[in-house]
Amino acid sequence: MRLSPYQQLEQEFRRLHAFRGAASILRWDSAVMMPRGSSDLRGEQLAALETESHALLISPRVSRLLERAEANTQALEDWQAANLREMRRERDHAIATPESLVSRLAKATSRAEMKWIEARQKSDFALFAPHLEEVINLMRDKAGLLGKALNLDPYDALADEFSPGLRSAEIDSIFTALGRRLPGLIHEAIELQAKQPPLEITGKFSTAKQRQLAHELMKAMGFPFDRGRLDESEHPFTGGGPGDIRITTRFSPTDPLTGLMGVLHETGHAMYDVGLPEAWRGQPVGRDRGMAMQESQSLLLEMVICRNRPFLKYLKPLLEKSFGVSGPEWEVENLYRLLARVRRSLIRVDADEVTYPVHIVLRYDLENEILKGELKIKDLPEAWNARMEDRLGVRPANDAEGCLQDVHWAVGSFGYFPSYAIGAVIAGQLYESLRSERPELDDEIAAGQFGGLFGWLRENVHSLGATLSTPELIKKATDKPLSAAAWLRYIEGKYLEE
Amino acid sequence: MRLSPYQQLEQEFRRLHAFRGAASILRWDSAVMMPRGSSDLRGEQLAALETESHALLISPRVSRLLERAEANTQALEDWQAANLREMRRERDHAIATPESLVSRLAKATSRAEMKWIEARQKSDFALFAPHLEEVINLMRDKAGLLGKALNLDPYDALADEFSPGLRSAEIDSIFTALGRRLPGLIHEAIELQAKQPPLEITGKFSTAKQRQLAHELMKAMGFPFDRGRLDESEHPFTGGGPGDIRITTRFSPTDPLTGLMGVLHETGHAMYDVGLPEAWRGQPVGRDRGMAMQESQSLLLEMVICRNRPFLKYLKPLLEKSFGVSGPEWEVENLYRLLARVRRSLIRVDADEVTYPVHIVLRYDLENEILKGELKIKDLPEAWNARMEDRLGVRPANDAEGCLQDVHWAVGSFGYFPSYAIGAVIAGQLYESLRSERPELDDEIAAGQFGGLFGWLRENVHSLGATLSTPELIKKATDKPLSAAAWLRYIEGKYLEE
Repeated sequence: MRLSPYQQLEQEFRRLHAFRGAASILRWDSAVMMPRGSSDLRGEQLAALETESHALLISPRVSRLLERAEANTQALEDWQAANLREMRRERDHAIATPESLVSRLAKATSRAEMKWIEARQKSDFALFAPHLEEVINLMRDKAGLLGKALNLDPYDALADEFSPGLRSAEIDSIFTALGRRLPGLIHEAIELQAKQPPLEITGKFSTAKQRQLAHELMKAMGFPFDRGRLDESEHPFTGGGPGDIRITTRFSPTDPLTGLMGVLHETGHAMYDVGLPEAWRGQPVGRDRGMAMQESQSLLLEMVICRNRPFLKYLKPLLEKSFGVSGPEWEVENLYRLLARVRRSLIRVDADEVTYPVHIVLRYDLENEILKGELKIKDLPEAWNARMEDRLGVRPANDAEGCLQDVHWAVGSFGYFPSYAIGAVIAGQLYESLRSERPELDDEIAAGQFGGLFGWLRENVHSLGATLSTPELIKKATDKPLSAAAWLRYIEGKYLEE
Repeated sequence: MRLSPYQQLEQEFRRLHAFRGAASILRWDSAVMMPRGSSDLRGEQLAALETESHALLISPRVSRLLERAEANTQALEDWQAANLREMRRERDHAIATPESLVSRLAKATSRAEMKWIEARQKSDFALFAPHLEEVINLMRDKAGLLGKALNLDPYDALADEFSPGLRSAEIDSIFTALGRRLPGLIHEAIELQAKQPPLEITGKFSTAKQRQLAHELMKAMGFPFDRGRLDESEHPFTGGGPGDIRITTRFSPTDPLTGLMGVLHETGHAMYDVGLPEAWRGQPVGRDRGMAMQESQSLLLEMVICRNRPFLKYLKPLLEKSFGVSGPEWEVENLYRLLARVRRSLIRVDADEVTYPVHIVLRYDLENEILKGELKIKDLPEAWNARMEDRLGVRPANDAEGCLQDVHWAVGSFGYFPSYAIGAVIAGQLYESLRSERPELDDEIAAGQFGGLFGWLRENVHSLGATLSTPELIKKATDKPLSAAAWLRYIEGKYLEE
């Protein structure tokens, strides 16, 4: 029997999925297992897979099959029509950037990343500046070409690669709402928390026991250990993919909570992947809906569910049993205060959920100005520091804790940052719907029952795969357009309680 | 500047090398890290890489470039000319088997392997027989096509895939010499050893300490831990490749020597890979010279060097320190007797070095008869058992310890087995040359100095890569044609001493 053009496309994209899955495991291996001296060799392997994937997407064969399949969609089921749209989307993104630009970007970002590492170590922005300049010039070209091909503003074209369908108009409106409310909110929260400072946790906590507890919590949440692993790496991440999902964390022997919160954050990502429709696996429509949605799942689990009293009720006896501890610092209320502390701090990845969007809005503003040429690279450090002081009341003492702290720009990830804060906002909006539809949620979580939580997420988010754009997905899941309102209500409820 | 056809070929084969390197790490991951339930997904990833590699080799572009490069070889250096020959060799092997047969074989061997696992568990050959029959029919087709394309006998064409240049004529002559001498030698060795049976080692040995000792030995031998790892898996193996080499072993808590010997065996493989010329890395000529050469390196290190008195003098204090042991069973002479015991046993992978070739010759004879249709599949178990009894004096009680013990035939690896025994013979021949050129070898090994050993191997074997065929390489390294004579002298010297 001859395969239809659509069926042939499914075959091609299944092959693409296999290459990407292989690359994802190799990247996990690089971070978790690989000996240090093997990174050049690994770089060649990943580049070969990347080149092959790109070549597949932009091949004349795929373009031809897309046109033929699109000319005859009557026979397709709804999910197949959505799959065809996603195939088209991936191909149009891939083909918009010419090979020569792709290869120049690959070289420039590779150099820039190496220089960034050195510059950060020495806290010397000047070392990094010319390389960042080179990356930005190329990214400006890419944004222009991509924007023209996709009929989008240049910045939106870049952002669309990370969170499909997310546009500056929505980001601006959400960030404006946050900008209006956050400064006051941060001030009030800090004032309030100062009245009842938590007791610090001290002591030594076996990392073997931390690992065991992490496994126990992941099992309780339904993480499939027959198709996944937990390991350790310098920075926590989720790798692999549905069918072989690998999360990592970093355990500290003096702080049993941070490693655990890392595990819970990554478990949020993992459960999204695990919940994607199995029947669509290997197809574009069977993938997650991008970075903002991914971040919404990790933040919902870590920040909203687990750094909260019902979960801590469940966790307290497990901590006591695991580490043989007890006392006032291990009481639910104290754990809660430790895990919900608001602080004006300099480093994004260590920020609490209230100040976190400030870090993001700052980067969003700066990367827009840089791409438009309104801000010169040489002026970046001062612009960063001045705005941090203005918006968060703290000023970096050096570039390492200022504009050199993130790798994103060095590797050309412009348009990525908003996904983090929009992810948080989405988490707030999903949580409001979830609670109103599932009033028993707190009791379930306190009892260590996570089926209700993940059942709701699976039904309303995970099972949709990539059938809808990011804003459409949120509209469908919550019956409301994406906005900052629910998240602000959640934050006010949590941090302004007396 | 335009690249010459030869230079373009180097680029293509570098890409092939990257795909194969990626696949090798993914196979390592499957055996060492991967969750059990992810094997189907991994199978798809490996199949995609395999298909891509094959497509690259048989592409019209590569054929065209080969012809153009071969028409103009004056500008090539010697190693490049050898590289071109190896490129041609790989392409001719790959293109001889039509896609349809490759795909039928892939399916048949995948089914047969699953059935083999079940049949071995139940010790029921009848379950496996029809699947083996299917594989053999396809392998007969493949051998015929390959033989025609390469102008070789069908069996030689298969064997050439594993050990390039090794032919039945040489194998037969070596196996005949072994067959003449081994029965008597085994009898005499067992009689002699019975006069002084070793004391058994008993107790519990921390696997953490075994691992630590293994690391120490590997370091002493020069294993590059900045570009390699030691891990544990069900069956020891060497994976990855030069630049990122990964060996595994299996530690037993009641037997500290077996896991260690596994490590030393695999370290022999690893040091071969490590010693390949770095300038040729990524090119066919920069690869090892096949399975017989690989096995010669692992057996030389494990059997010839490490299961011998000088090495055990070095090892004894390390064992005593590692495990806090002492006593007569830990004396060099007793360790030697334990590690050089000759026994008539049923399982190939557990066999000592004297009886091992008997296991191989049996398989070589049988697979030849099967491929030629002289032996019917249904008669295989009885043929196996009768010959084991005749040649080694032991008869399997069931098929699991008889003709179902190895996976090779299930997965279509006909022509592989001889490489094991030829590898041993090569180890003996290399060792004789090495000792005559380096009389201080025993003293060096006893002092834990391995530079002389590996320096000689690097100069005479590793640095040649795949420039020569297997027999040519041995001729060049030892100045003598490949034969069983040196190995028999080594075995007689070691096992018939009074």
